[in-house]
Amino acid sequence: MTDIVSLLIARLGAEQVLTGPDMSPYSRDWMDAYHWTPLAVVKPRDTAQVAATLKWANETGTPVVPISGNTGLTGATSGDGAIMLSLERMSAIREIRPEARVAIVEAGAILSDIHAAAEAHGLIFPLTFGARGSARIGGALSTNAGGSNVVRYGSTRDLCLGLEVVLPTGEVMDLMSELHKDNSGYDLRHLMIGAEGTLGVITAAVLKLAPKPLAYATAMVAAPSIDQALVLLNRLQAETGRAVEAFEYMPGTYIKAHMKRFPEARAPFDEAHDINIMVEIGAIAARDATPLPDGTIPVVAQLETILAEMFEAGLVRDAVVAQNEAQRAEMWARREAVAEVARLHTPSIDHDIAVPLDKMQTLVDTLDARARALDPDITILSVAHLGDGNLHFNGWPSTDDPAVHSAIYEAVEDTAMALGGSFSAEHGIGLMKKSSMARRKSPEAIAAMRAIKTALDPRGILNPGKLLPET
Amino acid sequence: MTDIVSLLIARLGAEQVLTGPDMSPYSRDWMDAYHWTPLAVVKPRDTAQVAATLKWANETGTPVVPISGNTGLTGATSGDGAIMLSLERMSAIREIRPEARVAIVEAGAILSDIHAAAEAHGLIFPLTFGARGSARIGGALSTNAGGSNVVRYGSTRDLCLGLEVVLPTGEVMDLMSELHKDNSGYDLRHLMIGAEGTLGVITAAVLKLAPKPLAYATAMVAAPSIDQALVLLNRLQAETGRAVEAFEYMPGTYIKAHMKRFPEARAPFDEAHDINIMVEIGAIAARDATPLPDGTIPVVAQLETILAEMFEAGLVRDAVVAQNEAQRAEMWARREAVAEVARLHTPSIDHDIAVPLDKMQTLVDTLDARARALDPDITILSVAHLGDGNLHFNGWPSTDDPAVHSAIYEAVEDTAMALGGSFSAEHGIGLMKKSSMARRKSPEAIAAMRAIKTALDPRGILNPGKLLPET
Repeated sequence: MTDIVSLLIARLGAEQVLTGPDMSPYSRDWMDAYHWTPLAVVKPRDTAQVAATLKWANETGTPVVPISGNTGLTGATSGDGAIMLSLERMSAIREIRPEARVAIVEAGAILSDIHAAAEAHGLIFPLTFGARGSARIGGALSTNAGGSNVVRYGSTRDLCLGLEVVLPTGEVMDLMSELHKDNSGYDLRHLMIGAEGTLGVITAAVLKLAPKPLAYATAMVAAPSIDQALVLLNRLQAETGRAVEAFEYMPGTYIKAHMKRFPEARAPFDEAHDINIMVEIGAIAARDATPLPDGTIPVVAQLETILAEMFEAGLVRDAVVAQNEAQRAEMWARREAVAEVARLHTPSIDHDIAVPLDKMQTLVDTLDARARALDPDITILSVAHLGDGNLHFNGWPSTDDPAVHSAIYEAVEDTAMALGGSFSAEHGIGLMKKSSMARRKSPEAIAAMRAIKTALDPRGILNPGKLLPET
Repeated sequence: MTDIVSLLIARLGAEQVLTGPDMSPYSRDWMDAYHWTPLAVVKPRDTAQVAATLKWANETGTPVVPISGNTGLTGATSGDGAIMLSLERMSAIREIRPEARVAIVEAGAILSDIHAAAEAHGLIFPLTFGARGSARIGGALSTNAGGSNVVRYGSTRDLCLGLEVVLPTGEVMDLMSELHKDNSGYDLRHLMIGAEGTLGVITAAVLKLAPKPLAYATAMVAAPSIDQALVLLNRLQAETGRAVEAFEYMPGTYIKAHMKRFPEARAPFDEAHDINIMVEIGAIAARDATPLPDGTIPVVAQLETILAEMFEAGLVRDAVVAQNEAQRAEMWARREAVAEVARLHTPSIDHDIAVPLDKMQTLVDTLDARARALDPDITILSVAHLGDGNLHFNGWPSTDDPAVHSAIYEAVEDTAMALGGSFSAEHGIGLMKKSSMARRKSPEAIAAMRAIKTALDPRGILNPGKLLPET
């Protein structure tokens, strides 16, 4: 046992430090795509134990990899020879302050626990995605997670007012502000959010809560084109006062594969369509949510009217509005099955890209053409958070040739970049996209990031080898 | 003439470089509170000239102070012996892309010019405040300016998608993203926004536009208490689907002083009230804005109904809803006369503080009590962006004793901090609040800021002596 592990056990107590086979859950990511051998796993009980761990690690130059729910997709928690610093025991929801609409939580709080705590007060914490039952807020903050309702509520950084961060030296930086305005120096909160644990370890946060919608109107819509779908989005935003909570694109190929994976699932429409949109509107005003004498919910009627008008005008090909919670759940289940549907086929080429909203049609068309030029029989099942300009490219190549796979991956990235896009919309960099980062990001920006990393973590102990490409 | 000034003239052309008496408009702030003697004034025509200026300044260790509209309140543009780098010639609005709802502008673009360009497309750039006719967007970004409708649209940082920044070395960092999601490394955009020109010079930006409200409902409301006013705010937000654009508090003392300064102005109500709120709702849905057969505008009727119900319940003491644009303009003029009303009295104690929303009542009560304990005859006229938890303390002391003045200033800050607040809500630090920064901000945060400053500007040429307290 190394000196630092002995020291950690002596100072923190043996039950806070795992070694040997106990480390196995902390030795791989959930996709089983990355594997590593930690030096030890530390599960601190409080911020002081996080600080002590970082202080000793910094003094000895030992790498530390913060690990939260370990639901990331880019290998950002891999830690060969590192202390895995798991925040799982710091999972308290310290306080919900409904009148101020904030939640004060520890970094290890599980997303769905935060949801439940907010809902007990008639409020929501809007951040949500498939892994909400195991993802922890510290990881969501460190990766600036997105999800399914960014179009209304923003990404994780937009939902965070304050942070507590332990710096690599072990110093605790208190930024636990509940303020909506605070111009007192550089915005260190936004610097820490999305830094993937390379600049500090987030130990607590102040989160913004929102009123829980009183009613939802949810529909599947078949559109003639993505551009037409965006016309629908703009109209819905205008007519509802920007109450669109989700606007999710699924191609016909995805619908088909979903029914193959879940044979009991129903098709969204009688006929198959290429462009399927799941739209959800959340009504927060009583006038939109209170049932009329005939039982109609106004926001549902409003959505039906708009879709009917657009259908008459030929701008919508088909539409089905959920008439009850079960139908709504079916629509969401279809969208959230992405990870399971993707597993139907190996190999699979996945990418998470973003372009400006008005470039989405061009993106989808170009990706289709370029991928088919490289592999004429590829199946493309990319879903998209269409309202955010964020496409999750998913291609099932017809060949095992790795050269074709990487040519397709590069073509996806080239296309996004040529349209003014990003090679990482919401998943971050981790290990997986360091090469893209090195080639695609402004060299001046990378140099500035490196300078900041060195300034805050001079010994380079925090999550080394992640996010920043090697010099 | 120093070598660098000769060099600047030789390289940039004499018309880009001012010296001697021509520098006088660049030698003081607009309040005439700060005065300085620049080395020279440089007015670059493009980003390349900004880059060249910074490169030479960095090589020679010459301080550079970026100056935009010079409408700040904290002395952040003072520059004794510095090159004043004025962005005024880089004022182009390069492009409005209505379908993507973005504006691409140079840093010297005047705020009201951006407003006009957006409105030509039926859109708005929401950032607005009194100095909009001379403030330039580069300065608004560098100070993360707030203003009167942050409650709906957020501060400047929330309205910016991308930036072009010239670093102290003269390198140009291209972050001109139009994306709503981009998790590719540290968020350098948020680091540069609000950095008061100490880390880089913003030369261009991608701004978010929003749909122009189709109708406004604007009212003056007299509330029994600030807590009751916040109940009204929450009800209006819920009933209108969060369409409140402004929720501005003015005490009875302010109303009285306003009528003294503008004798032609009418009182908002027949009787005087202590707690006066100007509320504005912006309707973006046609159903809320399209006049009914009797000419009524639905959003106006909605506001009238809510106010009438709250009046009946004793939760509102009086209310007047603007019936036409002239009445609305009168309400806004009253609120925007703050700077002129404040000039009625010398001396004046001013502060810009924020607290969590649910602490506003306590803040106002405590400030009143503490200021009166120090000066029983003080007049307090603080207005507030109530919906943001942001109070602009304004006190007219009855004594000229500077010890009393500074005791009151400290009491204001102590009170805000004790309530979990900030000593700078929206005005920034500049020179004025460096002492507060040194005493009130987390020492770990200041140390992290210093490390970042040194990393990005090792020679310390950019806006030296601002924002960060001396070590």
